[in-house]
Amino acid sequence: MIPTITTFGWVPQFARGFVRDLRPRWAFEEVGQPYAVELIKDAKSTEHRRRQPFGQVPTYRDDDVAIFESGAIVLRIAERAGQLIPSDAPARMQALQWLAAALNSVEPYVMALAINDIFEADREWSAARHSKVIDDLNRRLADLEAALGDGPWLDGDTFTVGDLMMVSVLGGLRGTGVLDGFPALSAYVTRGEDRPAHRKAMADHLATFAT
Amino acid sequence: MIPTITTFGWVPQFARGFVRDLRPRWAFEEVGQPYAVELIKDAKSTEHRRRQPFGQVPTYRDDDVAIFESGAIVLRIAERAGQLIPSDAPARMQALQWLAAALNSVEPYVMALAINDIFEADREWSAARHSKVIDDLNRRLADLEAALGDGPWLDGDTFTVGDLMMVSVLGGLRGTGVLDGFPALSAYVTRGEDRPAHRKAMADHLATFAT
Repeated sequence: MIPTITTFGWVPQFARGFVRDLRPRWAFEEVGQPYAVELIKDAKSTEHRRRQPFGQVPTYRDDDVAIFESGAIVLRIAERAGQLIPSDAPARMQALQWLAAALNSVEPYVMALAINDIFEADREWSAARHSKVIDDLNRRLADLEAALGDGPWLDGDTFTVGDLMMVSVLGGLRGTGVLDGFPALSAYVTRGEDRPAHRKAMADHLATFAT
Repeated sequence: MIPTITTFGWVPQFARGFVRDLRPRWAFEEVGQPYAVELIKDAKSTEHRRRQPFGQVPTYRDDDVAIFESGAIVLRIAERAGQLIPSDAPARMQALQWLAAALNSVEPYVMALAINDIFEADREWSAARHSKVIDDLNRRLADLEAALGDGPWLDGDTFTVGDLMMVSVLGGLRGTGVLDGFPALSAYVTRGEDRPAHRKAMADHLATFAT
């Protein structure tokens, strides 16, 4: 079978361009692996929850493997293709370190802003809490920018699954203006999103909602 | 060299038993790998930030690899030992899926409670926001409990890096009473923390602060 991902056939306007099926789509394009997409309407259905216990997207399956979690899916696509992840232990573990950092040290701060400013926008604390959330996020981004240094990618000259995930996580800040304060990080995200594989993945993602 | 981790030589009372050096310590004990611990006082120092850009702990190094991020470190320890992670692709990717789920789908909700109730306790929104944070967390835990089902571990009979990370993440709720509402999940955490390797890791972690 052709590797297949499951994602939403419809999301509200504000979520378009941000759904996590972008991550496997981007990885598939980077490694040149054709894939199929299965669109669902209700992620909370019993049927979907058998594949994804938290009622989210994407899920992934191929002839051998059936998994959820975008971090694990991207790793599967990379390892199956023997691309996007170095084979020698030191460089491989660096890439996995950045993959973990994107998921656990950066994305929670990006999500905290979305939670406060979108999902808790109508709560009485949202306006007051905004600047605290921004301060925490800015500190994290300053550290990340320092770690990036002058390199085009987190580990220097080689684009890895770590960069794919980090650029995707930082792409969650699109439209907030937060990255304006971090020119090197901003250029890093642009560099990632300008890759032909990302452009194709984003176009295909957005085309889902065009009809 | 003996694999070496870096962690704090001192933390406040409320953080003892919760610092993330517990994760590599537990993994080392599970696979029977002796290790060394390097204690630091100031995680924000320039020297430490060269190893850990976010000024956190733990970091890890062996003869070949130098990394941070507890998720990547635990994976390195497991792969280096050829234990805690199955070698066949389907089971291996399941374990990595749960590792990613612990880091990205569960821990952010556990941390949100600590952020609200500890780090933002003196803010004007903390009391009002508490029940929203608890509701979000409870929904996530209910989903996880359903996914666990009757199995002793997330993938059935085999304890993997996915369980190690998930039990450690859920251990962050110790003392909050939140897990009381989830008997199967609570038993799962107890089952993990009762493993001799976890007991030894926790004892060694706490002994750091005993002098």
